Amino acid sequence: MNFVPIEPTDDGAVKILDQTRLPHEVAFRSLETLEDAAEAIRVMRVRGAPLIGVTAAYGLALAMREDASDDGLERAVRTLLSTRPTGVNLRRVVTDVEAALKALPPGERAGAARRAADRLRAEDVEMNRAIGEHGIELLRRLAGEREGPVRVLTHCNAGALATAGLGTATAPLYRAHDEGIELHVWVDETRPRNQGAALTAWELGNAGIPHTVVVDNAGGHLMQRGLVDACIVGTDRTLSTGDVCNKIGTYLKALAAHDNGIPFYVAVPGPSIDWETLDPEDVPIEERDGREVAEIGGVRLVPPGTPTANYAFDVTPARLVTGLITERGVCPASPEGLRRLYPDGGGASAEGRSGEDGP
Amino acid sequence: MNFVPIEPTDDGAVKILDQTRLPHEVAFRSLETLEDAAEAIRVMRVRGAPLIGVTAAYGLALAMREDASDDGLERAVRTLLSTRPTGVNLRRVVTDVEAALKALPPGERAGAARRAADRLRAEDVEMNRAIGEHGIELLRRLAGEREGPVRVLTHCNAGALATAGLGTATAPLYRAHDEGIELHVWVDETRPRNQGAALTAWELGNAGIPHTVVVDNAGGHLMQRGLVDACIVGTDRTLSTGDVCNKIGTYLKALAAHDNGIPFYVAVPGPSIDWETLDPEDVPIEERDGREVAEIGGVRLVPPGTPTANYAFDVTPARLVTGLITERGVCPASPEGLRRLYPDGGGASAEGRSGEDGP
Repeated sequence: MNFVPIEPTDDGAVKILDQTRLPHEVAFRSLETLEDAAEAIRVMRVRGAPLIGVTAAYGLALAMREDASDDGLERAVRTLLSTRPTGVNLRRVVTDVEAALKALPPGERAGAARRAADRLRAEDVEMNRAIGEHGIELLRRLAGEREGPVRVLTHCNAGALATAGLGTATAPLYRAHDEGIELHVWVDETRPRNQGAALTAWELGNAGIPHTVVVDNAGGHLMQRGLVDACIVGTDRTLSTGDVCNKIGTYLKALAAHDNGIPFYVAVPGPSIDWETLDPEDVPIEERDGREVAEIGGVRLVPPGTPTANYAFDVTPARLVTGLITERGVCPASPEGLRRLYPDGGGASAEGRSGEDGP
Repeated sequence: MNFVPIEPTDDGAVKILDQTRLPHEVAFRSLETLEDAAEAIRVMRVRGAPLIGVTAAYGLALAMREDASDDGLERAVRTLLSTRPTGVNLRRVVTDVEAALKALPPGERAGAARRAADRLRAEDVEMNRAIGEHGIELLRRLAGEREGPVRVLTHCNAGALATAGLGTATAPLYRAHDEGIELHVWVDETRPRNQGAALTAWELGNAGIPHTVVVDNAGGHLMQRGLVDACIVGTDRTLSTGDVCNKIGTYLKALAAHDNGIPFYVAVPGPSIDWETLDPEDVPIEERDGREVAEIGGVRLVPPGTPTANYAFDVTPARLVTGLITERGVCPASPEGLRRLYPDGGGASAEGRSGEDGP
C-alpha cells in the first residue's frame, strides 16, 4: 500500500489519513486526545471495523496521557464505546484493554495502552495477510474456470482503508493481482456514505486493479447477466451462527448472489466474530444522522422537510453465505464451521481470547 | 394532483413540468418541435414509461407541424424511437400512431397526431384511475391485518410524475389516502437519478402522504425487521411471461420481499405489456451516461478517471412477483394470469391493439 491509514508518531500522538476528505484530497490529521480519537471514529475519518478497533486502542492510550486514573479510564471507555454501536471489534478492544489497564497502577497505564495498540495494529496487519493467503485460493480456482478476468463484486470498503494492512475483502484481491491473476472489480457505490465510490475505487485505482463503480442498485442485474464470478465483502460483526452483519445493502447482494448461483464470501478476521450474540435481531444496528441521506457534498437531494432514515448496517443470514475467509482458513458460515477454526472461541471469555487479540 | 406533468397548449405546443429541476424548482417548459420532445425524453425532463409514451405522441404531432411528408414522418419516428430503448410504451405509441398517420394525406397528419396524443393522454388518466381502484383493495386488506399505518415500500417514481394522471404504483396510495386509510411509504432514493428522493418524495409530500426516504440499500433491512407490509412498484415493460422490467434495483427489492414473505406488487397499465418478447435477456437494457453515477449536482463522487457503468433497468423474474395490478384487475404474474385479463393481448397485432391504446 502506498498509504498508511493509521500510524503512531514519536510524540505520542497518532497520525490518521482523514477518510472524509477522500477521494478528492489525501489529508492527514493528528489525534492528540481521547476526544480527537472519538470524534475521528464518530464522524468516520477512520472507519471499518478493524481500523475502528485499532483507533480505539490508540484512543485509550491518548486518554491515559491525559488522565490515567480509574475515573479517567472509565470515562475513556464510555466515550469510545458510544461512538459506533454495531462493529464488534471496537467493543472487544476497548473491553480487553480496559481489563488489562485496570490491573496496572495509573503510572504505567499510558505506556501499556500504547503498547497494546501497537500490538493490535501489528496483529491486524498479520490477519489481513493471512486472509489474503486463504482467499487467493478461491480466486485462483475461479481464474481457472473461465477465460478473462475474475470478476468480483464488493460492497462498501473492506479494504486497506478499513484496516491497518491489506484490508479484509481486498487482501485476496491484492495478493491475486501481485501474482498476475487478472481481475475486474465491480465496486458498489455504497450509499449513503459512498465508501465504494470514494474509498474502494481510490485504493483499487492506486493499486492498478481494474474496476468499475456502479450504483448499489446494479449488482443484481450484473449477476443475472453473468457478469460476476464472486462477491467478497467484509463484516462489522459476524455471529457464531455464521450470520454476517455488514454495511447496509450487503443482504441484498447476498440474495442476488444466491439467486444466481454465485459464490458469496465474507472476509472475517477473528476479532470481528461475536461469540455471544446468537439472534441477528439482537445486533444493534446503528442509525446515523438522516442528513447523510438527504445531502451529498452540500447538495440537497430531497425536498425541504422530507423525513429520512439512515440505518447503517444489515444482517445477511448464514444460509446466503458461501464461506467465511478468516485468518485461520476458509470455513462454512455455520456454528460448526467457525468452531472448527476457533475451538477456543465459543466458550472463551474476553480474557480467554486476549492471547489472540487482547492487549 | 396539484400539478400537471404534460399539457397541450392552445398554440399547438406542449407544456411540460421539467422534472430535472425538481425537487428544488417547479419549472415548466414549452415543447415546440420534434427535437424539443426528443430532447425532453432523452435527458429525462419527462420520464416514466406512460408519460414518455404520451410525450412521444405529442412529439409526432409537433413533427407533423414541421414536416408532414412521409420522409418527415419517418424521421420523426426514428428520432423518437432512439431516445430511450427499454420502456415499451414509447415504441408502441410511435409505431401505432405512425401506422395511422401513414394512411392519411400529409395535410391531415398534424391534426390527427394531435388528436391521437390527446386521446392517449386521456386513456392514461383513465388507466391510472382504474389501477387505483383495483390496487386499493390490496391496501384495504393490509389495513385490516394490523394496527397502525399500512407500510408500503416503493422504488423509483411510478407516480403522477410518471404518467398523465394519478400514477401507476401511486394510484392505489392516493386513492387509499383519500379514503382515510393510514399509510406510510418508504421511498427508495433510486440512484443514480434519485427519482425517489427527488420526485416521489416531492409528490407524496404535496399529497400529504407520510413517507420516509431511505437509500436503496436499506429496503432489505426494513423488510427483515418487519417494517414493510407490501412493495408496490411500476414497470417500463412487463413481458407476457410476467417478468417485470423496471428501474435498476427493483429485482433486489423483489428478492428481499420474497425472502421475507412480503407481497410484491407491480402496477402495470396494459400498454406497458410486451406481448412479443418472451426471454428477459432479450429486453434491451438502456445504458446511460456514466456521469450520472460519477457526479451528482456537480459534486464528483469518484476519483478522477474512475470507470463507471450505468445500467438503467433490470428484470424481476415473475416468480418473485405476487401480483400485477392492471387497469383490468389484479392478476398473477404469469402467462395465464395476463391472458385471462387480456384475452386479445397475446395474439393481437399492433393494429389489433389499437382499439385500446392506438391513435
